[in-house]
Amino acid sequence: MQAINASIGFDRKMWRQDIRGSLAHAAMLHHVGILTAAEEAAIRDGLAAIGHEIEEGSFPFSEALEDIHMNVEARLTERIGEPGKRLHTGRSRNDQVALDVRLWVRDAIDGLDGQIADCMAALVDRAEEHAASVMPGFTHLQPAQPTTFGHHLLAYVEMLGRDRSRLADCRARMNESPLGAAALCGTGFPIDRHMTATALGFDAPMRNSLDAVASRDYAIEFLSACAICATHLSRLAEEMVLWTNPYFGFVKLSDAFTTGSSIMPQKRNPDAAELVRAKTGRINGSLVGLLTVMKGLPMTYGKDMQEDKEGLFDAAESLALGLAATAGMVRDMKPDVARLREASRAGFSTATDLADWLVRELRLPFRDAHHITGRLVAEAERQGCDLPELSLATMQAAHPGITMDVFSVLSVEASVASRTSFGGTAPVNVRRAAAWWRERLA
Amino acid sequence: MQAINASIGFDRKMWRQDIRGSLAHAAMLHHVGILTAAEEAAIRDGLAAIGHEIEEGSFPFSEALEDIHMNVEARLTERIGEPGKRLHTGRSRNDQVALDVRLWVRDAIDGLDGQIADCMAALVDRAEEHAASVMPGFTHLQPAQPTTFGHHLLAYVEMLGRDRSRLADCRARMNESPLGAAALCGTGFPIDRHMTATALGFDAPMRNSLDAVASRDYAIEFLSACAICATHLSRLAEEMVLWTNPYFGFVKLSDAFTTGSSIMPQKRNPDAAELVRAKTGRINGSLVGLLTVMKGLPMTYGKDMQEDKEGLFDAAESLALGLAATAGMVRDMKPDVARLREASRAGFSTATDLADWLVRELRLPFRDAHHITGRLVAEAERQGCDLPELSLATMQAAHPGITMDVFSVLSVEASVASRTSFGGTAPVNVRRAAAWWRERLA
Amino acid sequence: MQAINASIGFDRKMWRQDIRGSLAHAAMLHHVGILTAAEEAAIRDGLAAIGHEIEEGSFPFSEALEDIHMNVEARLTERIGEPGKRLHTGRSRNDQVALDVRLWVRDAIDGLDGQIADCMAALVDRAEEHAASVMPGFTHLQPAQPTTFGHHLLAYVEMLGRDRSRLADCRARMNESPLGAAALCGTGFPIDRHMTATALGFDAPMRNSLDAVASRDYAIEFLSACAICATHLSRLAEEMVLWTNPYFGFVKLSDAFTTGSSIMPQKRNPDAAELVRAKTGRINGSLVGLLTVMKGLPMTYGKDMQEDKEGLFDAAESLALGLAATAGMVRDMKPDVARLREASRAGFSTATDLADWLVRELRLPFRDAHHITGRLVAEAERQGCDLPELSLATMQAAHPGITMDVFSVLSVEASVASRTSFGGTAPVNVRRAAAWWRERLA
Amino acid sequence: MQAINASIGFDRKMWRQDIRGSLAHAAMLHHVGILTAAEEAAIRDGLAAIGHEIEEGSFPFSEALEDIHMNVEARLTERIGEPGKRLHTGRSRNDQVALDVRLWVRDAIDGLDGQIADCMAALVDRAEEHAASVMPGFTHLQPAQPTTFGHHLLAYVEMLGRDRSRLADCRARMNESPLGAAALCGTGFPIDRHMTATALGFDAPMRNSLDAVASRDYAIEFLSACAICATHLSRLAEEMVLWTNPYFGFVKLSDAFTTGSSIMPQKRNPDAAELVRAKTGRINGSLVGLLTVMKGLPMTYGKDMQEDKEGLFDAAESLALGLAATAGMVRDMKPDVARLREASRAGFSTATDLADWLVRELRLPFRDAHHITGRLVAEAERQGCDLPELSLATMQAAHPGITMDVFSVLSVEASVASRTSFGGTAPVNVRRAAAWWRERLA
Repeated sequence: MQAINASIGFDRKMWRQDIRGSLAHAAMLHHVGILTAAEEAAIRDGLAAIGHEIEEGSFPFSEALEDIHMNVEARLTERIGEPGKRLHTGRSRNDQVALDVRLWVRDAIDGLDGQIADCMAALVDRAEEHAASVMPGFTHLQPAQPTTFGHHLLAYVEMLGRDRSRLADCRARMNESPLGAAALCGTGFPIDRHMTATALGFDAPMRNSLDAVASRDYAIEFLSACAICATHLSRLAEEMVLWTNPYFGFVKLSDAFTTGSSIMPQKRNPDAAELVRAKTGRINGSLVGLLTVMKGLPMTYGKDMQEDKEGLFDAAESLALGLAATAGMVRDMKPDVARLREASRAGFSTATDLADWLVRELRLPFRDAHHITGRLVAEAERQGCDLPELSLATMQAAHPGITMDVFSVLSVEASVASRTSFGGTAPVNVRRAAAWWRERLA
Repeated sequence: MQAINASIGFDRKMWRQDIRGSLAHAAMLHHVGILTAAEEAAIRDGLAAIGHEIEEGSFPFSEALEDIHMNVEARLTERIGEPGKRLHTGRSRNDQVALDVRLWVRDAIDGLDGQIADCMAALVDRAEEHAASVMPGFTHLQPAQPTTFGHHLLAYVEMLGRDRSRLADCRARMNESPLGAAALCGTGFPIDRHMTATALGFDAPMRNSLDAVASRDYAIEFLSACAICATHLSRLAEEMVLWTNPYFGFVKLSDAFTTGSSIMPQKRNPDAAELVRAKTGRINGSLVGLLTVMKGLPMTYGKDMQEDKEGLFDAAESLALGLAATAGMVRDMKPDVARLREASRAGFSTATDLADWLVRELRLPFRDAHHITGRLVAEAERQGCDLPELSLATMQAAHPGITMDVFSVLSVEASVASRTSFGGTAPVNVRRAAAWWRERLA
Repeated sequence: MQAINASIGFDRKMWRQDIRGSLAHAAMLHHVGILTAAEEAAIRDGLAAIGHEIEEGSFPFSEALEDIHMNVEARLTERIGEPGKRLHTGRSRNDQVALDVRLWVRDAIDGLDGQIADCMAALVDRAEEHAASVMPGFTHLQPAQPTTFGHHLLAYVEMLGRDRSRLADCRARMNESPLGAAALCGTGFPIDRHMTATALGFDAPMRNSLDAVASRDYAIEFLSACAICATHLSRLAEEMVLWTNPYFGFVKLSDAFTTGSSIMPQKRNPDAAELVRAKTGRINGSLVGLLTVMKGLPMTYGKDMQEDKEGLFDAAESLALGLAATAGMVRDMKPDVARLREASRAGFSTATDLADWLVRELRLPFRDAHHITGRLVAEAERQGCDLPELSLATMQAAHPGITMDVFSVLSVEASVASRTSFGGTAPVNVRRAAAWWRERLA
Repeated sequence: MQAINASIGFDRKMWRQDIRGSLAHAAMLHHVGILTAAEEAAIRDGLAAIGHEIEEGSFPFSEALEDIHMNVEARLTERIGEPGKRLHTGRSRNDQVALDVRLWVRDAIDGLDGQIADCMAALVDRAEEHAASVMPGFTHLQPAQPTTFGHHLLAYVEMLGRDRSRLADCRARMNESPLGAAALCGTGFPIDRHMTATALGFDAPMRNSLDAVASRDYAIEFLSACAICATHLSRLAEEMVLWTNPYFGFVKLSDAFTTGSSIMPQKRNPDAAELVRAKTGRINGSLVGLLTVMKGLPMTYGKDMQEDKEGLFDAAESLALGLAATAGMVRDMKPDVARLREASRAGFSTATDLADWLVRELRLPFRDAHHITGRLVAEAERQGCDLPELSLATMQAAHPGITMDVFSVLSVEASVASRTSFGGTAPVNVRRAAAWWRERLA
């Protein structure tokens, strides 16, 4: 029973939050006259000393006392006597746990937010540097149209920007204090929940005491925001794995982010990228875990909810690792610009430009232009050459209106430069977007 | 291949969105001079006629044309000829699909938002009606302290309020137009993405064309918001199942939400509540499904993403059913007020009130008051009576400072009325909270 | 990078498996002439000493050496010099990791199998004891027909029996040795994979070297078998929570499996049952985690697979805790036989027996008998009495053929005793089934 | 309510199973004397006629009758009168549903088993054909050692072989009949459950009536086996996507399994492979869905369980599509043997062979040989040449004992041929393994 019930093995991670909450509670109890000034001072000093003990590793954690809350409270009473026994007035372990987890998640969001911003900054730097480095744009992992390395990296900046915004929304929604909900019904003590809420940086106290101790939707929302961000990282990680594959050869990563093999000394395995990709799994798992736990739980607090913590801790830590590794790889990677350009010519990648020229210059309907382009691509494939290498005569056999002017749109640089629609891949757009983001990240 | 590839079987649900997008695109093409006024008018009439055909069931859907986009476009060309072939200028199936799914999700959010609000309104009505109806407040499914039925129902209003806010945040974040990203790189045609964005009710066009066709984070976020809301509904559904169980006997549901058994004619099975509870499973499943699909997908569009739609459709429909059934049950249910009150006395539910009295009146430290209360509860258990039935002498044997005044806090009504801390269960609080919500829902 | 890459923090759990594998490999290398007898002896002694160091806590684990395999090998070379450097001949970290995880999972299965059997034995004991203790049988959590507590408990024995069988199938399927697959292609050294397979208790070496280092389906299958077993435990745990709720009052659990509340000293919260129920979440999460990791991974080994271990360790440990707690609760619980019997009369629970009597004795079609029963139940509900308390006249008003004999089937004992179809709830069946299981568990 | 409650929209898929079950039940009822011969004959004819109606599409499905069971029974009574009303004697909708789902899953397993076998046969054919076609073996998507295309394909045969075995185990475990469990407690009618079990191809009747109507572990196990198989297919699909990427260029797929783009007529997108890869998501989702539904459900049947069906249907259909597409692609694909061979030389892929030669011929300790190889690889990298192109002098500078003989192991063909350990990549092994499998599949 003790093995399944005790949580001190993992919830000790929340010691800072527990002490912070108790300090705010004690100050409020003094303010409303439940504690004397001396009692509050004793509690403040006692908690400070306990914080010091935990930090330096000398705190005597006890599994018999089950959780961090009882460990701290028991130690406090050991140190300061009676005032320690008064600290719990007007609160319960239920609202205390709810508070600590909420504070912990809020701190985790703040930490992750900074890390995502750092990762975005790294991407913006490299995007600006490579605003005009032509590379293949892929759909279905087939080269489709030329794009630039900078434009490609900025796509991830957009995703990560939304990830930050998701975490910010989660933080704003959860930033209400459960403290004072007591066991579940509130209390008759004249506590001031607005005061503790403000002291702990919350926007307000939660409006319903049952909801305060029973809800974990913010925790699921946090896990879901983490899972989405991890999914974004997994996509870039997959590309790192592809790009460092020798047949792609788009990018080199240094030894800081690759490892050799125990039997093949020459290999540079993209271990960091693979681990970033894989971390998605455990974060998805934590999300599913908490959704499973909370499904069909009747009001209010059930011990089931103790299972929220390890998943939260693990997801936050996994995402933090993933973000650090990604930012590191982005800063570290050396794109092979010549190879990227060469690769961007594969697959008749300027066929769309040809079709668009036919529509624009000859005013062919889109679907007819499409058809003619298809015939010319087939012809180029037959001749084993690229589109710009077809003769004008061949072109004109497909449609007599085609002129020499068509060749001006068939290079990858021309293709990229032409796509100036808002958000399009033209280098001028990329530079503008990078500057826009740099300003917002500053 | 056709069996696995064709999506017309399910993506036809997006026909309204597809036509809406094409109308906006055609108007813009005319505005920038790519289509003539006559061409645009022909397209507009043609699409209206197609919409009419689909609505009345006479549209000749073709599986060979794979998806809703090709079906509509082919039919348009069949009806109006050449202008139909020009409609696709400056866009691609990739941004068209991205647009249609986004419009569909936005419409789904709007529909669900209204349904959640309706469900909240039903809860607020019943909460106000039962602001003072005492019932047991549970932790661990053990009666813990008396609360009121109104306070309990308002806890769900809080949860659903956050669900709406989550959907609203999702909507705001996703409300950017992918149209004009074309295949993946934007286009050289002088399209006006801001114009189509505005016409379609978006706040702005998306800033990066690759991101526009490759991202589905908004769809995962939507599914996650649905899963959290479904989890909330599953908790209330679990309580409906418990409350209608004869040993609880808290609530009766009419035949509209229960069924008989094929072999036991007298049973009233809470089928609707059970199905609401179970729907969480498939919505969680759709969430996991899309997270799995998107993990590790390299840029930009891959056919994998076609798998987003059925999960989205199913989750939205399942949640809509769950919300409708929940609102219906809340309006339908008849709580047995006498039984709720009686049940609230189980388990020495005013023990906390006794402990609080000891702290407040005798200024005992919380932990000592707790200890004395424990002894008195044990004594009451031994005598087979409730706390208010203990004699004053027995009370004083536990602590000589106890006076007759203590009995004034030991009734369930007194307990409930005393919990006046912000968010606490006192009827005056419940009425105030119900009024607060009613105003916001109006 | 080291933070994301190092696995020694968790894979040290596999030290026994790592040493076992190395011993078998060394013995084989000697057998085929690659190691001398002296070298093998030195390795054997060295590994034994290392095992001793780890057991007593003196082993100098190094994070720089990344994983358990390198830690052990480096320490071996430190202790015995050159033979340590020869140990890795003909194998690679890839097959070594694959071997260690496989051995670990096999050991975990063996441990869990014993625990499930113990849990079944506890259930069979209590089932036999309560073979004739009448209780309500539920569908939709509504009392449906009387059953017995013994029959109910045996339903879980069936489920757990299948859980064992699932684990046994998983064990048999995975019991093939990857050792000797080397990095991925096998080796040119004249190793004897059959010899190491036999030495390590495998049925055979795996037939394809790429498969040997790349596959984790056995790990997913193991997690899935754990998740199903945990789901079974969650159902019994839910029932424990319901049964110990005071309105049910079916069962009492001692302090060994319940806890008090910090503020409500008298409560007996079924914490153990709630935690068993909740553990399902994290096991489902580990399953989803590994499914996510493995989806779409190209051949052969990728670092992603390092993420398999923590989920496996956690799932096995969580299930072990859940099984121990469940077996303990089953042995500990005190059913309230009188209350169970009384509760079994709720809801006109013998209505089916009446309908069956009408079919059997009056040869009415089933659907007509059903209809008449419905009318009599409605009448009893109107009179506020139970079916056996209706008068014969009332019965005959519903169908004139009814005789006094009908009353002999309307008691809960008669109902239970009558259900003698194979697998039915009659006490004679329950005793027979308990004996059948006891024999198989012996 | 009807919208959320009715299941006829999806459970009509089980009409064959429903009729099969009713036929067996009726035959048994006649055998034990509950139905007359004439009644049973009427039922038999009636059900046959109904089967005919459903097959030809003329059956009048009614949503008011909720499910397939009531639809069939009501229609039967409509057609044959009173005997139809007697058919339900001794059974209930609960065991009828349990039976139908079980029969359906068993049929699905049989269908999938044949499809997996077909997929394996396709792989074995291609493996034999390419037993000696050298290709790069990858770890971390980096070329590691040369292997053969045949060996690679056979790795999937091993995985699919285990998938079949998993389904076979699932089938064997679930092959027990729930029919006769009635509502939940069995029945007093003298039914013969062994007779119906045998008639329906079951090994035995289930031993506990509560378990029979309450359990869905077989359905979860089936979904889990499907998810694992889909994961295997997703890995091969990922490789198809990589192999058809032009920088790999390993394999060509015909138009039957690729599509063009609406805007880039020349592209050959591996849509079928992408969809196979993505299907994993929805199958994982169905698995999570049912695990979520079943978690914490008290005994016995709850309406929640109705949610099992759509996930089962969808998973079986998705896997069937994935298997058909995979078998098709395997048969269709054209590997570019020259390119595969050339690619296999990338990354100093015979470095291990050099290290092994040093161990074998010079009896260097493995770790020392590893070190020397590393220096030679670095030297080759510096010279921009492959290992076999280094001079003997350079070799001897690294270790004086190296002789000309070393060059005999440095070609990719020599490397592949040398790996003759059991399960290794040598063509002779591959041919033997292909033959072994061919025999088992025959």
